[in-house]
Amino acid sequence: MSAPLLFTILNVLGTFVFGLSGAMVAIRHRFDIFGILVLSVATGVAGGMTRDLLLGAAPPEALTTFWPMAVASLAGVTAFFFTSAIERFNRPVMLMDAVGLGVFAVAGCRKALQFGLDPLGAILLGMITAIGGGIVRDIMATETPRVLHEDVYALAAFAGAATYAVALAAGVPETAAASGAVLLAVSLRLASVRLGWKLPRPPRS
Amino acid sequence: MSAPLLFTILNVLGTFVFGLSGAMVAIRHRFDIFGILVLSVATGVAGGMTRDLLLGAAPPEALTTFWPMAVASLAGVTAFFFTSAIERFNRPVMLMDAVGLGVFAVAGCRKALQFGLDPLGAILLGMITAIGGGIVRDIMATETPRVLHEDVYALAAFAGAATYAVALAAGVPETAAASGAVLLAVSLRLASVRLGWKLPRPPRS
Amino acid sequence: MSAPLLFTILNVLGTFVFGLSGAMVAIRHRFDIFGILVLSVATGVAGGMTRDLLLGAAPPEALTTFWPMAVASLAGVTAFFFTSAIERFNRPVMLMDAVGLGVFAVAGCRKALQFGLDPLGAILLGMITAIGGGIVRDIMATETPRVLHEDVYALAAFAGAATYAVALAAGVPETAAASGAVLLAVSLRLASVRLGWKLPRPPRS
Repeated sequence: MSAPLLFTILNVLGTFVFGLSGAMVAIRHRFDIFGILVLSVATGVAGGMTRDLLLGAAPPEALTTFWPMAVASLAGVTAFFFTSAIERFNRPVMLMDAVGLGVFAVAGCRKALQFGLDPLGAILLGMITAIGGGIVRDIMATETPRVLHEDVYALAAFAGAATYAVALAAGVPETAAASGAVLLAVSLRLASVRLGWKLPRPPRS
Repeated sequence: MSAPLLFTILNVLGTFVFGLSGAMVAIRHRFDIFGILVLSVATGVAGGMTRDLLLGAAPPEALTTFWPMAVASLAGVTAFFFTSAIERFNRPVMLMDAVGLGVFAVAGCRKALQFGLDPLGAILLGMITAIGGGIVRDIMATETPRVLHEDVYALAAFAGAATYAVALAAGVPETAAASGAVLLAVSLRLASVRLGWKLPRPPRS
Repeated sequence: MSAPLLFTILNVLGTFVFGLSGAMVAIRHRFDIFGILVLSVATGVAGGMTRDLLLGAAPPEALTTFWPMAVASLAGVTAFFFTSAIERFNRPVMLMDAVGLGVFAVAGCRKALQFGLDPLGAILLGMITAIGGGIVRDIMATETPRVLHEDVYALAAFAGAATYAVALAAGVPETAAASGAVLLAVSLRLASVRLGWKLPRPPRS
C-alpha cells in the first residue's frame, strides 16, 4: 500500500473511532441527537484542528475538505442507531479511544515532519494530535480528561509517534514504520488496561 | 442599510449579549467584579477569536481593534450594576445567549466566505463562531456546555448560517439574507425553549 | 543584565513555576507520573502557545525550541520527587502560580509589542499569556479556574503588563521596566491573598 493511501485510511479511521467515542459519551449523558453530533464531531476533529493550528496550516483540513466533518458525523449517526450493538463491546469508549490515540499519534507526527518540524517537535505534535480529541470530549462532558488519570495513555501516544519518527530516520520504509508504530501504540494502551499496568504515583503524604 | 454597517451592528450586538450572558453566569457564581469582567470578555470574544484563528487571520480582531474587548467589558459592567433589572427577564442567560447565537452564526459565516472558504466550510465556521462563546463560558463555570444538552441549539446556529449562505447563493441581497437568517436562528432557538421542542434521544438501554 | 537575557530567564522561570503548579495539582489528584507530566507541561506551555497562536507565530516556540517542554517536564519530575519539600511552602500552588502570573504577563506583553501590536492589544495579550496556563490547569483538573473566583488575579496580570508597556513608552530602560512590572504583579497577587483583599461583588439578590 502506498504511504499517502495508508495515511488517508488512518486519518479516516481515527476520525471515525474518536467520533464514536464522543458519541457514546454523549449517549451515556442522554444528550439529544444534535448534542451527540456536536460531541462526535468535536472529538473526531479537535485533534486534527489543533494540529493544523499549531502548524500554522489555517484554515484547518476539517474546514477546507469535506471528509473530516462527514466521517465524524457518520460516527455520531452510527452510534445513535446502533447504540446497543456498540455497547456489547467491552468498554467501547476506551476501545475506540485507544485506536484513535494510536492512529492520530502517528498521522500527526507525519504531518508535522512534512511541515518541517524537527523530530522531537513532531513527536510532541503527534502526541498532542492524539490526546487532543479525548481532552475536548472529556472536558465538554465535565469529566476529568483520561489523559491525566489513566495510566499509560499519553505514554502510548508518545511511544507510537517516537517509534514512527525513529524508524523513519533509521531508513525503515514509511508504510512499515507507520503500521508498526500504530500497532505498538494501540497494543500498549490496550495491554495496559487489560493487564492493569500502573505507572508510579507519588507517595501519599 | 449597507451590509458592512449591518454586520458591524450584528457583531457589536453579539459581543454585548454574549458578554452579558457570561457576566450573569459569573454573578450567579458570586465571582468578584474582575472575575465577572474576565468571563464576560471571554464569552464575548471567544467565538470571534476562534473564528479568526481558524481562518488564519491572526492576530484576531479582538486584539487589533479596540471595540470587542470594550463592548464585552461594558457588558460586564452593565450586568454588575443592573443585575436585578436583567434578572427580571425570563431566563436572561438563555435569552442573551440565543441572540448572540443567531447573530454570530451569520456574521461568522460571512467572514468565512470573505476569506474564501466554500459554503459548507463557511456554514460550519459560522456555527463554531456561534457556539464557541457559550462553550467557553460554560466550561469555565464548570457547567456542561448547553450546546450538548439543550435541544435545538447548535441546530439553530447551523440553520442560521446555512440560510444565509444559501440565500446569498440564490441571489438574495446581502442585508435581507443576513437579517432573515439571524431572525430565523434566534426564533428557532427561542421557540424551541418556549415550546419545549425535543430532538430525538437514543432509547434507554 | 541585557534585556534578551532577562526575558529568557523570566520565560524559563515562568514555565518552571507554572509547571510546578500543574504538577502539584496533579499530585493532589493522585495522578500517575505521566499524568503529572502532562499537566505540568500543559500548564507550563499553554500560556505561551496561546500567545504564539494569537500572534500568528505558528508553529509556537514550545514546538520549535527544545527548552519549554524540557523545563516544564523538569518541573513535573521535580514535583514528583520533592513533593513533601514543596508542600512545606504555605499554599505552594498559589505561590508558584503567582510568580508565573507576573512573569508571563510582562514577557507576553513584550513579545506582542515586538510583533507590532499596539500597547492596549499587547497588554491584553500579556494578560492572556499569564492567565492561560492556570485556566488550562484548573479546567483539566475540573476545578473552577481561579482567574474567576480569586480576587486580584487577572487584575494583577493586567497591572503588570500595563506597567511594563507604560514604563517603556515613558522611556524607562527595558530591564528596569520589566523587573519593576514583574515585582509589582507578583506582589499585588501575593499581598491580595495574604491581606485578604476583596474586590466588589454584586449585591445578593
